Amino acid sequence: MSKFPRDNTITLTANERPTAWYNVVADMPTKPEPSLNAANLQELTGPDLEAIFPKVLIAQEVSLERYIEIPDEVQAFYDLYRATPLVRCYRLEKYLDTPAKIYYKYEGANPGGSHKLNTAVAQVYYNKQEGVKRLTTETGAGQWGCAVSMAANYFGLEMQVYMVKVSYNQKPYRRHFMELYNGKVCASPSPYTQAGRNVLAADPNCKGSLGIAISEAVEDALQREDTKYSLGSVLNHVSLHQTIIGQEAKTQIQKADDYPDIVIGCAGGGSNLSGIAFPFVQDKVNGKKVDILAVEPTACPTLTKGKFAYDYGDTAKMAPVCKMYTLGHDFIPSGIHAGGLRYHGMSPLISQLRNDGLIDAVAYNQNQVFDAAKLFAQTEFILPAPESSHAIKAAIDEALKAKEAGEAKTILFCLSGHGFFDMQAYASYMAGDLQDIEFDPKNFGHLPEIK
Amino acid sequence: MSKFPRDNTITLTANERPTAWYNVVADMPTKPEPSLNAANLQELTGPDLEAIFPKVLIAQEVSLERYIEIPDEVQAFYDLYRATPLVRCYRLEKYLDTPAKIYYKYEGANPGGSHKLNTAVAQVYYNKQEGVKRLTTETGAGQWGCAVSMAANYFGLEMQVYMVKVSYNQKPYRRHFMELYNGKVCASPSPYTQAGRNVLAADPNCKGSLGIAISEAVEDALQREDTKYSLGSVLNHVSLHQTIIGQEAKTQIQKADDYPDIVIGCAGGGSNLSGIAFPFVQDKVNGKKVDILAVEPTACPTLTKGKFAYDYGDTAKMAPVCKMYTLGHDFIPSGIHAGGLRYHGMSPLISQLRNDGLIDAVAYNQNQVFDAAKLFAQTEFILPAPESSHAIKAAIDEALKAKEAGEAKTILFCLSGHGFFDMQAYASYMAGDLQDIEFDPKNFGHLPEIK
Repeated sequence: MSKFPRDNTITLTANERPTAWYNVVADMPTKPEPSLNAANLQELTGPDLEAIFPKVLIAQEVSLERYIEIPDEVQAFYDLYRATPLVRCYRLEKYLDTPAKIYYKYEGANPGGSHKLNTAVAQVYYNKQEGVKRLTTETGAGQWGCAVSMAANYFGLEMQVYMVKVSYNQKPYRRHFMELYNGKVCASPSPYTQAGRNVLAADPNCKGSLGIAISEAVEDALQREDTKYSLGSVLNHVSLHQTIIGQEAKTQIQKADDYPDIVIGCAGGGSNLSGIAFPFVQDKVNGKKVDILAVEPTACPTLTKGKFAYDYGDTAKMAPVCKMYTLGHDFIPSGIHAGGLRYHGMSPLISQLRNDGLIDAVAYNQNQVFDAAKLFAQTEFILPAPESSHAIKAAIDEALKAKEAGEAKTILFCLSGHGFFDMQAYASYMAGDLQDIEFDPKNFGHLPEIK
Repeated sequence: MSKFPRDNTITLTANERPTAWYNVVADMPTKPEPSLNAANLQELTGPDLEAIFPKVLIAQEVSLERYIEIPDEVQAFYDLYRATPLVRCYRLEKYLDTPAKIYYKYEGANPGGSHKLNTAVAQVYYNKQEGVKRLTTETGAGQWGCAVSMAANYFGLEMQVYMVKVSYNQKPYRRHFMELYNGKVCASPSPYTQAGRNVLAADPNCKGSLGIAISEAVEDALQREDTKYSLGSVLNHVSLHQTIIGQEAKTQIQKADDYPDIVIGCAGGGSNLSGIAFPFVQDKVNGKKVDILAVEPTACPTLTKGKFAYDYGDTAKMAPVCKMYTLGHDFIPSGIHAGGLRYHGMSPLISQLRNDGLIDAVAYNQNQVFDAAKLFAQTEFILPAPESSHAIKAAIDEALKAKEAGEAKTILFCLSGHGFFDMQAYASYMAGDLQDIEFDPKNFGHLPEIK
């Protein structure tokens, strides 16, 4: 009957889901360099971090254990939306007329709308276990703020979100979503922290940045005994929690008697790429042939044009100093619509793997990415987030290369979130108003001098 | 381990899905009265309708067959998103501390975001089969316009959507969504039809109405040989296509060794209520004990305050005249946020069943409905559409009644769509800006005089 297979989706039962997160550090040929205290550029110690993070997360940050068990209470929340579907793109393949098989792991169908919920629930849980009553965080476009507000409300913690002012004003819908989950949201720079007041004194009309918002959230957490800070990307424990994505995907694609030749994820701070890719990095380190591809915007090409060096995590130099690919902590990326990919640095784990040749990277400009997003929406009937659409673009290019080479390649990518809150970006794209912005090396920011 | 069951979702495989739509007319104790031609108020004939509908849909409109087979090409599209999940609300039940079991059938996870896609794909398919190249329709808030644009793009038909001007201007995101699927969208009243020009001549600032938009879409279809018209609710063939919802739900709830004491759906034109309820009406007619409850807004209480009488389907008196519950074809409902429930009339099938005592009805005001929506979002982690939230409110009330009576009642409701495009409504609700509007009988509109 139907010319397409009736079941294009591979699911997992609750019992087939992973019971532990996978810690790639255990298998890395070169272990990541230690992070430094931003105040003195000396090696960061556990006690340095205890003011802002709970002990369990600090232990996970530096753990060498290969597997870390997922607590029951976190699994109970994962029950709400995991396993997420692995979907074969029959219609896109047909449109491209490619011999390649394209699969995507869809993290956008959960109530938070992106993969961010995977770590949000874990982080809130561990904070609650250690008696924390209130959390602070920063958010740009708002995906992370939504996820952590939902998780905090679930576990009964108070949530304070510092939202970059330009998004607070121009993109109110994700803010309202956070408020629906009792998240308290203020525009950053705010008058509530010294960091915010300093910025406002210098420029009352400052539109904010992720770096400033991080500084405010960290300062807030440092001021109150009952409060700690939560970060949605970059750090090792965040990557750890996201590995649930790739572990599920590996089981699912094996159910289809398949295995990817290439695994693709978009990369801003690196959390969704870590999630889909690290369980396959494990195989690669153990001799299996599999390529890993990071996809980033030409406007913020951290892995393709950045330096592998120690740098501050934020502009105000309050967050840890990490060895990572960076464009300089004071690099200001252009205002592209993939707000989640506008970060000057990159996960230290991904950076080290990239430096060791285990991860490749490619950059695309906005219009290419939205062309791919539109084609995907029309063939696969999912409206992808602009960030995730970078991975779609790379998957399409790989499928076309396979067509040219006549190879039945298997391509797996992470579709990290939906685009229902990004319709203005789609409207600008359709109106021809999107700028394609190339990185100008003279805008490269500063790096700290490490002795 | 986890205090909630790990699998709260009941799925169906492709092979367990229904192969036919269920036509409730076959089992109705009182058959629906024939519809009339708006031009002469005489009984409507097939040829009257052929100018705007394809023959197969006209045949379905008056069919007495109990089951109508779903074409393979429609099933192939349903493969994309059906079966939809049936979910047990363990968290909501726990919050309400009720002995009742609450299930919802979720139609909002599909790419169109609502149940509308179920009939959109069927209608476009049959039009294509009969050589139609172009379709017209009207849309209010835009759920229907999105669904039919997606379906038209899938089958390669051109789509012209007349969108009520106030929504066109105030809610651009669903419009951009339609455009992403190559839907051509214009604000109604438009200068492109005589009906539109007449309205604009009388009032250049007219914000439009669903009635005017229907008149424009019908006029457009009548002007062109290659064009027909498509309607997203009210008519019998639309209800027919939606019965896939209730048939799936019946199989799913039986898989859980359960059966509903009450089946609940919100009702605007009646399509999602038809979908969830008609397969259970069949059981009820055959002696099974099951209540059916329609939920509507107090601002547009068609079933609770309307009259069961012949009335025009649109304000301009171009659409068929149906025997239905109505508030009068020139009744103008207040500007509530559940735009999909602002229709003066009701599905003739639901109306007849209501008149025969087989369907009950209740009305709620906006703030009650959004209270329920917020509670649902916080407990079940789905952001519901304002329309669908009427069903949630009724389900909660039934669960609380069961608690008071100490009864382990089973409640099933249709969650017809997501609320990602309704954040402005949620923001107004949280800001305390929503008006609760009661129907004033002196605003009752006019009815035609039938001899």
